Amino acid sequence: MPEIRQNIATREWVIIATERAKRPEEFVQAPRDDLTLDRPSFVPTCPFCPGNEELDLERLRLPREGEWSTRVVANRYPALQENGTLEPNFSRLGHALAGIGYHEIVVESRLHNVCPALESLDEIELTLQANRIRGMAMQHDPRVAQIIYFKNHGVSAGASLVHPHTQILALPVVPHSIEDRMLTARHHFENHAECVYCRMRDEEVREGVRMLAESEHFCAFVPYAALSPFHVWIVPHRHAAAFVDATDDELRDLAWLLRDILQRMYHGLGDPDYNYIIRSAPKRDREAAYMHWYVSIVPRMTRQAGFELGSGMYINVALPEESARFLRDVRLPEG
Amino acid sequence: MPEIRQNIATREWVIIATERAKRPEEFVQAPRDDLTLDRPSFVPTCPFCPGNEELDLERLRLPREGEWSTRVVANRYPALQENGTLEPNFSRLGHALAGIGYHEIVVESRLHNVCPALESLDEIELTLQANRIRGMAMQHDPRVAQIIYFKNHGVSAGASLVHPHTQILALPVVPHSIEDRMLTARHHFENHAECVYCRMRDEEVREGVRMLAESEHFCAFVPYAALSPFHVWIVPHRHAAAFVDATDDELRDLAWLLRDILQRMYHGLGDPDYNYIIRSAPKRDREAAYMHWYVSIVPRMTRQAGFELGSGMYINVALPEESARFLRDVRLPEG
Repeated sequence: MPEIRQNIATREWVIIATERAKRPEEFVQAPRDDLTLDRPSFVPTCPFCPGNEELDLERLRLPREGEWSTRVVANRYPALQENGTLEPNFSRLGHALAGIGYHEIVVESRLHNVCPALESLDEIELTLQANRIRGMAMQHDPRVAQIIYFKNHGVSAGASLVHPHTQILALPVVPHSIEDRMLTARHHFENHAECVYCRMRDEEVREGVRMLAESEHFCAFVPYAALSPFHVWIVPHRHAAAFVDATDDELRDLAWLLRDILQRMYHGLGDPDYNYIIRSAPKRDREAAYMHWYVSIVPRMTRQAGFELGSGMYINVALPEESARFLRDVRLPEG
Repeated sequence: MPEIRQNIATREWVIIATERAKRPEEFVQAPRDDLTLDRPSFVPTCPFCPGNEELDLERLRLPREGEWSTRVVANRYPALQENGTLEPNFSRLGHALAGIGYHEIVVESRLHNVCPALESLDEIELTLQANRIRGMAMQHDPRVAQIIYFKNHGVSAGASLVHPHTQILALPVVPHSIEDRMLTARHHFENHAECVYCRMRDEEVREGVRMLAESEHFCAFVPYAALSPFHVWIVPHRHAAAFVDATDDELRDLAWLLRDILQRMYHGLGDPDYNYIIRSAPKRDREAAYMHWYVSIVPRMTRQAGFELGSGMYINVALPEESARFLRDVRLPEG
C-alpha cells in the first residue's frame, strides 16, 4: 500500500510509491565513463585552475596566506548585478525590482578533476568557511534580504563547469517558498513553544530507523517524508537560524559529516549527480527562535514531471527507511 | 540589468537574467532524429494501441459508440491505490495517510506515433472531455481532496511511454503549495474584491505585449513573471474555480487554442519536451469566488539546479515579452 507522508517542518507532502518502489540497490549507477575518470587535474583554460587567478574578480582566498586552497570569485555570468539601487515598482501585474544582488563562485580545490566527495577534509572545511565569510559580507549590504548557498554536482543537477565549486546567490527579496516556511515554523512555535526543526531532529534521533550518522555538533538522516531517494538532511544540534552564525568548531565538524555522507553516496551509489543546499533564514530573521539552518542533499535519481510541477508534491520511489539503511551500510575505504 | 518579477497570483518571484539571456531563436532545436520520426503508427505490444483494450481496466471510451478515439484506463503502476480507507495518523514526525486515490491514463489517440500538437481537433477535444468526465467521477469519492491533470511530453518532461496520453491523479490531501495559492488568492479577494487571476488575465490583455491568442472563451499569454522560456498560461474568460465546471463549448474552444499553442511550439521551437497542467481548485473550493482554473504549459528548455531547489525561485533566461513575440510570429501550416 502506498503511503502519503507530510514533513512536519515544511508541510510538504510526498507519495511513497510502493507499487513503483525500487530496492536501494537498483539505484546504483555504473561507474562513470572513462572520459570522466580520465579528466586532467589541471586545465590551462579553466578559469578556476591555478594560474588563472587574474581572470575573474577575486573576493576571498583561503588560507589567507601561502598557496590558496579555496577561492571565491564573482560569477562571470551573474544572475544578479551588484551595482544599482533597488527601486521597487508595483504594477497591476505584480512587483518588479531591479535584479540586484550577488552571485559568487566558491572554487573548492586547486584540482580541476577532484570529485567533491574525495576532497580533503581541509578543502571541504575551507569551502564551508568561504561560504560563511562571504555570506556574512553580503548580509552587511542593506539591499540583501536572503542568501542561497548551493552546489550543483553533475550535468543533471545543473552543473556546467567541471572544476568543483559551490555558489552563493544573495537576493533582494525573500522567495515566496521561504516566506511560507517561515510562517509554518512560526505557527508551530506559537502553538507548541518549540522549534519544529529541533523537534524533527530529536524525533529522528529517537526513532533511529532513518539515522545515518551523528557527530559532535550535527546529525544526518533521511527525513521521514524524504522527497526523493537518498534525500538527506544534516541538522545542527545547536539551535540557530542562520548559517553565518555557525562556529569554526561546527564548520569543522560539518565538513567531516558532509564528507562522510557524500562518500557514502559516491561509493555506494556510483557518484550520482546531486545538489546540496545550505538552508538558512532570511537576513531579517537571523535571531528567529523558530527557524533552524540545515543542509539538504538531493541526489538526482528521478525526474520531475507534470505531477510535481502541478502539485508541488513529489513521488518518492524509495522507502526512506530503506534509503537510510542502504547508506548506513556502505563501507567506506580507510582515510 | 537583470530584473526580478513577482507573479501577482502565485507570489512566485523569478529572476529575468538578462546577462545570461538568449534570443528566442537560440532555443530552437534541431529536428528530432529519424528514429523518432520513423516510429510506427501501430505497435502490437503497446497497451494503448487498438487491439489491446483488454490489457488494462477501462474507465471510459469516447466517442461512447463506434470506434474509440480516446480511452481512459487505470494506471498499471499507480502512484496511489483505489481501495482502502483513509486512516490519518499523526506522529511526532508529521502526518501520514494511506496512499489512497486514483491514477488514470487518458489515451489521446488511436495512433501510437502522433505528436500531440498534430492530433486532430476532435482528438484534443475528446481528451479534454475525458479528463473532465473522469475528474467529475473522482470528485464524487469522499476520500478525494484534489485532482491533478497533467501531461508529460518527451523524456526530459518525464514521459516514459510514447503513445500520447495525459494523466489524472486524485489525491486524498490538498498539496501544501496549492493550499498556499488558495490562501494568497483569498487574501487578494478580501483586499481587492476581485479574483486575482481575472485581474491578471485582464491586465495581460490590456498590456498586450505578452499575448499570444484570444478565442471566444479563453486567452493565452506568456505571463509577466514567466518562470521559464515560452511558459504559457491559457485562462478562461468566464470565472470558475474548477475545471470540471467547464462547459462543452468551452472545451471545444480550449481544444482549438491549446492545439494552436502546441503547434506554435512544435513548428517554431522544433517539438520541445513539455508538461502541461490543468490547475484547478481543491474539491472543497469548487465554488470559491477567488480561485480560477487555467492551463499552464511549461516547455523543458532549461534545468532546475540547486538555486531553484533551495529558493523555490526560477531563473528565466528569456525575456517573457520576447518569448511571446516569437510564438506569435510562428507561421502555422494550413489546417
